[in-house]
Amino acid sequence: MDAALGWLEDVAGRRLNDPTDPLLVSVRSGAPVSMPGMMDTVLNVGITDRCLDGLSSKSGSRRFALDSYRRLIQMYGAVVLGVPRQMFDRALDDVKQSMKQPREKTSGKCELERIVQAFKAAVLEHTGRPFPQDPQEQLAMAIDAVFRSWRSDRAECYRKLNGISESMGTAVTVQAMVFGNRGGKSGTGVGFTRNPSTGANEIFGEFLPDVQGEDIVAGVKTPMPIAEMANAMPDVYRELAVIARRLEDHFREAQDFEFTVEEEKLFLLQTRTAKRSGLATVRTAVEMAAEGTISRLEALRRVRPENISEAISSKLDMSDGASVLLTQGTAASPGVAVGQIALTAEEAVARANRGETVILVTKETTADDIQGMAVAAGFLTACGGSTSHAAVVARGMGKCCITGAKQILMDERVPGIRIGGKLFHSGDWLSLDGATGRVFEGQLPTLPADQENPFLDALLGWARNASSSSVRANADTPQDAIAARKAGAAGIGLCRTEHMFFAPDRLEHMRSMILAESVEERAEALDLLLPMQQRDFEGLFRAMSPLPVTIRLLDPPLHEFLPTAEKIDCEIAAAIREENLDYAGRLKNVRRRIEALAEVNPMMGHRGCRLSLSYPEILRMQVRAVLQAAATVAAEGHDPHPEIMVPLVATEGEMQALAQMIEAAAAETLRDCEQAIPFRIGAMIELPRAAVCACGIAKYVSFLSFGTNDLTQMTYGFSRDDARTYLEGYLQNGILKADPFRTIDREGVGRLMEMAVQSVRAACPDVKIGVCGEHGGDPESIRFFRSLGIDYVSCSPARLAVAQLAMAQAEMKADCEFTFEKLTAV
Amino acid sequence: MDAALGWLEDVAGRRLNDPTDPLLVSVRSGAPVSMPGMMDTVLNVGITDRCLDGLSSKSGSRRFALDSYRRLIQMYGAVVLGVPRQMFDRALDDVKQSMKQPREKTSGKCELERIVQAFKAAVLEHTGRPFPQDPQEQLAMAIDAVFRSWRSDRAECYRKLNGISESMGTAVTVQAMVFGNRGGKSGTGVGFTRNPSTGANEIFGEFLPDVQGEDIVAGVKTPMPIAEMANAMPDVYRELAVIARRLEDHFREAQDFEFTVEEEKLFLLQTRTAKRSGLATVRTAVEMAAEGTISRLEALRRVRPENISEAISSKLDMSDGASVLLTQGTAASPGVAVGQIALTAEEAVARANRGETVILVTKETTADDIQGMAVAAGFLTACGGSTSHAAVVARGMGKCCITGAKQILMDERVPGIRIGGKLFHSGDWLSLDGATGRVFEGQLPTLPADQENPFLDALLGWARNASSSSVRANADTPQDAIAARKAGAAGIGLCRTEHMFFAPDRLEHMRSMILAESVEERAEALDLLLPMQQRDFEGLFRAMSPLPVTIRLLDPPLHEFLPTAEKIDCEIAAAIREENLDYAGRLKNVRRRIEALAEVNPMMGHRGCRLSLSYPEILRMQVRAVLQAAATVAAEGHDPHPEIMVPLVATEGEMQALAQMIEAAAAETLRDCEQAIPFRIGAMIELPRAAVCACGIAKYVSFLSFGTNDLTQMTYGFSRDDARTYLEGYLQNGILKADPFRTIDREGVGRLMEMAVQSVRAACPDVKIGVCGEHGGDPESIRFFRSLGIDYVSCSPARLAVAQLAMAQAEMKADCEFTFEKLTAV
Repeated sequence: MDAALGWLEDVAGRRLNDPTDPLLVSVRSGAPVSMPGMMDTVLNVGITDRCLDGLSSKSGSRRFALDSYRRLIQMYGAVVLGVPRQMFDRALDDVKQSMKQPREKTSGKCELERIVQAFKAAVLEHTGRPFPQDPQEQLAMAIDAVFRSWRSDRAECYRKLNGISESMGTAVTVQAMVFGNRGGKSGTGVGFTRNPSTGANEIFGEFLPDVQGEDIVAGVKTPMPIAEMANAMPDVYRELAVIARRLEDHFREAQDFEFTVEEEKLFLLQTRTAKRSGLATVRTAVEMAAEGTISRLEALRRVRPENISEAISSKLDMSDGASVLLTQGTAASPGVAVGQIALTAEEAVARANRGETVILVTKETTADDIQGMAVAAGFLTACGGSTSHAAVVARGMGKCCITGAKQILMDERVPGIRIGGKLFHSGDWLSLDGATGRVFEGQLPTLPADQENPFLDALLGWARNASSSSVRANADTPQDAIAARKAGAAGIGLCRTEHMFFAPDRLEHMRSMILAESVEERAEALDLLLPMQQRDFEGLFRAMSPLPVTIRLLDPPLHEFLPTAEKIDCEIAAAIREENLDYAGRLKNVRRRIEALAEVNPMMGHRGCRLSLSYPEILRMQVRAVLQAAATVAAEGHDPHPEIMVPLVATEGEMQALAQMIEAAAAETLRDCEQAIPFRIGAMIELPRAAVCACGIAKYVSFLSFGTNDLTQMTYGFSRDDARTYLEGYLQNGILKADPFRTIDREGVGRLMEMAVQSVRAACPDVKIGVCGEHGGDPESIRFFRSLGIDYVSCSPARLAVAQLAMAQAEMKADCEFTFEKLTAV
Repeated sequence: MDAALGWLEDVAGRRLNDPTDPLLVSVRSGAPVSMPGMMDTVLNVGITDRCLDGLSSKSGSRRFALDSYRRLIQMYGAVVLGVPRQMFDRALDDVKQSMKQPREKTSGKCELERIVQAFKAAVLEHTGRPFPQDPQEQLAMAIDAVFRSWRSDRAECYRKLNGISESMGTAVTVQAMVFGNRGGKSGTGVGFTRNPSTGANEIFGEFLPDVQGEDIVAGVKTPMPIAEMANAMPDVYRELAVIARRLEDHFREAQDFEFTVEEEKLFLLQTRTAKRSGLATVRTAVEMAAEGTISRLEALRRVRPENISEAISSKLDMSDGASVLLTQGTAASPGVAVGQIALTAEEAVARANRGETVILVTKETTADDIQGMAVAAGFLTACGGSTSHAAVVARGMGKCCITGAKQILMDERVPGIRIGGKLFHSGDWLSLDGATGRVFEGQLPTLPADQENPFLDALLGWARNASSSSVRANADTPQDAIAARKAGAAGIGLCRTEHMFFAPDRLEHMRSMILAESVEERAEALDLLLPMQQRDFEGLFRAMSPLPVTIRLLDPPLHEFLPTAEKIDCEIAAAIREENLDYAGRLKNVRRRIEALAEVNPMMGHRGCRLSLSYPEILRMQVRAVLQAAATVAAEGHDPHPEIMVPLVATEGEMQALAQMIEAAAAETLRDCEQAIPFRIGAMIELPRAAVCACGIAKYVSFLSFGTNDLTQMTYGFSRDDARTYLEGYLQNGILKADPFRTIDREGVGRLMEMAVQSVRAACPDVKIGVCGEHGGDPESIRFFRSLGIDYVSCSPARLAVAQLAMAQAEMKADCEFTFEKLTAV
């Protein structure tokens, strides 16, 4: 420390502890990322009672000297000595209160002097020792505090959560102080080389005159946009623009930097990779690649899947015109949030645990609020701007945030808050639009995001080119398929045919089919369903030609198509009242059928391919509809590639029988059509047994697709319909690290998948292997699937963009799990 | 053939086709086991029109010559030439009818001559060729027919089902004929060296004078017990006894033999390992080992697990005195059968497929009936004796059989049958007691078998000594435990504690516990349940001391303990009618709780260890009850070894948390008791994930126990409650080879078990591994478990004997799957 300090003193031409002209320094963490629990900065280190006069005379302002001293005691006291911030707030209030007393006013001491005294008293009271009067001790303790904070529980937890290596460590930066609090020609600011919300290539940031850095970050005062500096300090602004460009050229990444202006002289204090919104991340990466600053691969690497989900996130729907605008603040982070008010971080955690969607509404946020912020859907603060804590965290988390909403009034003595004059309480609904900064009363509906984003389109195009595995979409209707095609889907990986039967006009025939008393009666009902299914399939094939469309045979148990027993009972009672006994009799038959079909555990019941084996006529109808549709569409000049997929296969014997049935039905249909349509047969691997015995099943198919939802259910014995009661407890108390229905369980379900893939690759290398569960849209799961060497995933159209990027990145990351971009992206 | 025939002619001193004194031969299969579809015997080969006179004059009886000729044509026609047996029956009827016409009587031909003519006509009619008149051709074709029958579909299927090697092949035996049909001093018989029903060491069998062998086997005529020969032909009988002893000494196994007496001269035609009842198999094996004829290991090897289940099978309960005895026939195979009448094999198959328990009631049975016999619970025939087809097959299958019940009248022209004068139809209930041969009207209750069998006890003692893996019993009550201990259980492998809660006095407290609105209220209810559980555990520990008792923590979802919503609705309605509104209000609370606890898929719901994690107070109560019981019993001088088993574990995290909770509750209890009771903690492996991740779970336990029922359910996604609808179809059409809930699915479930065992053995070699699903009582499954190297199985007390033998045999068979005893036991 001594050598470094010596060098610093040489450069500054001053010494610590020089009573006439002391060298003051700032101490800040040199870690390349800021993290909760880490000490960030202490300013003004070096001021003591002894040098206060020298500082006053040298700067020509006792007010400046005292202001700097009270800042030191407050900041140093809080972050180095651990004095609760409220003690300083209380001391400040006491001084202000006493200054109103006429007697006190005469005591001759100025307010700042009293504040310094009060703050020093607070330090003595809390620590039992006076505020340190040796500048060397101040410095050594501040440096030590930075290093210690690296090992704090919060910081360690954060690193673990974000996969940041413990071995990275931190540096400590000690800088000679420059002062933004030396009057109107001084000030401090935070800037971005690109707009952190939109990514536009323009300097963006904020500036506050006559303050030090913590004021702007804490959001205590509302700063001016950086662009206004062009008028207020044109030379400084020009210099800033030049430096900003140079920083970006050097780091080849958007920067956020802190600067101070001391009497119109510009000092750059720090620069880091900029935290920004998903939209901005995408645009910056794509534009930098277009400019040639970085490669396209690098651009792909820099965007995280979460950035994309955020970029394409939804909007508030105000089409009914009844929305009530309460206030407008700073649009600090885009996206929308509709949730219930929580007034503290603790309340947010408690309510989120009860399953509520929460909006954290506070005056401002600090690092202590991070857990509440993690569970909240969005943040609304009364103070701060677009670079205050809440804004920065929100953009990092991809959450909606509105800061500086001044029409929010909070009074701790009164329950609830006033927004735009109206009183709200914890639990009341608000709707935030982070893109505009507008706050609405109540629970507004939301609209899916506008997906027209040329930057994102470009990025995803590069992603598709970069990946050898492909991403398909799940689509049940021609509309879905058209959307999926537009979003770059490599095909339809899952069309759930039963969804076509739930439409009211079809449900009726479906029910007749189920209630049929003979094969003939059933065939009649199926004949009515066939053209409907065929029409849907035609739409799918047209939309996707020449890409493959995987059509799953009927999957749910038949009772799902029937009305409930209760409903029928009511109808029977009504029919009897109306003396319509004939009808009542028929209803009673229906009732009996419903009872016969009822199952104790429908998830493990008479469904999936078990239906096809019990009712071959349903399978025949579906195969016929698929191939007639393909033939029709082919005749129009399209190039349909139907894939018929069998759900819930457990044994080789089932698949052998079903493959024969499908082949037979197909041969018959194609003979009738007088056309040759290529089609493929596949099986879903969604039962543990199917995974263990995949090799035998693979003998009869050309593709396999893991249904990871059901596979997870059966492997864990967790019924998704029922598991909420205990699954949330499991996640809270850490028995489960992640929800296995969201992120694939590598250890258990993943091991079964691995067994299946390995055995099938060894025995049947031509069989394509995909994934069509919801995990197909989860980046972490996609990385795992890619490591297994699967050929494709299929996900919901809304997750396509995320999945495409995740798939490209999974390929890139195959041999290097930890990369620097991981660090800088946090 | 020529050389062999030459030798035979030399020995017999006669030639085939000698018109004055022809050599006649029998042709029979030389396979060491008879099997359906295989041609067994053709007698009298060599008779032609040309030698008929010579045969008559040489034997001194034209009747004998003609009788032998008609037998040849009939038997040869049927088995070699494939003429339907009914054609001969019809021809016989026609002749008998025509003999009643006075005109015909004058034609001078005797009845037998006419029958021979009619039979020859039938052969000509069916085959288009006259009955072969060249003895060489007859012989060659008969031999060829034997060889061909080895390859018949039925025989192949039988060999596959019974694991008989195709490479064994068959020989053909050609013997010079001796004739049992030469009058009163002649006859034919079948004998056993030991009683095939009881195993008693005495000659047993039947004899019919003046007939040939097929008459006795077909059960067409009712024979005399072999012992009566001692009076009728004392010299022959003495000789027979000497020969029987010599046969057994030679083959070191009970024999069944065929013999013919021709004019008081005894000829032995064939001997084979005797088919017999399970009881007889056990007694013979144990007595032979006691006599020193075979080793104890050989005795263990000779008894099949099925023999034991048959030996200890149940009896009819006639304690109410209301049973109606219809008739008594020959007690041909022991055991009881209570089922519905099926009058043909086809009907039996059809009705068994509908899930009915069927008793096949026929005049007699033939090999063609084998499929109907396979599905029937028992057989009742009007004809035949203890060696007729039905009797032999029944003993082989371990089924109850009564033959020769002469009070049964069947008339094809009238529907139904008369038994003891009463009319019965298909579907009417009968109860058979195979041990006494008595037939009762209706559906009698059955009693578990008397297990006092010194031979079986000895055998099972040897089995336990021969095996390094042990067999425990599942037992939920002290009574079960006492029975299990008596039957040689090595401990209790599964005590389902919830069964203790279903008793009416306990259910009430259980319900209060579930409906409790606070932890305190719940604790109160649990305090009432604790002493009850403790008392049960004390009984278990006393019964089993010093053997281990595995107690499973509460497993089923809580809603199983509550009344149904329908029932509560009725009670609410009643309370409202009675204006008991307060009570109705409380019931409505119950109703809400029932609704809240209802699950879509309870099998995969809030049950097993998930309950313990949600309601730790239940776990604490159970652990306390276990250890307080152990302490009490230890204070009495017993040596309890409690093992606490956690059900439905899916993850390592669960087991870690639960082990801590159990340890803590145990420490507290033992501190209160001021005793040190050793106890062990274990986990059930009954979810696919638990099998895949068993190694992690094993870190926190000292034993693991596969719950193969649930593991099979989850691995297949087959809910046992619902699977009947499709599972039976699967078994019928061969998609499944065996019911996976009966015999472990080696390929799928077994592979998961193998993974688990291997990983646990490698990482935690001290962890004991057992099986406590129902497969623990299935011999084939036990063989597989033993091959995995598991330490114990646990099964229902009723299966203990079978499992003990199966376990010993699994050990013996480890290196040799196919042994000759397998053949001879078929």
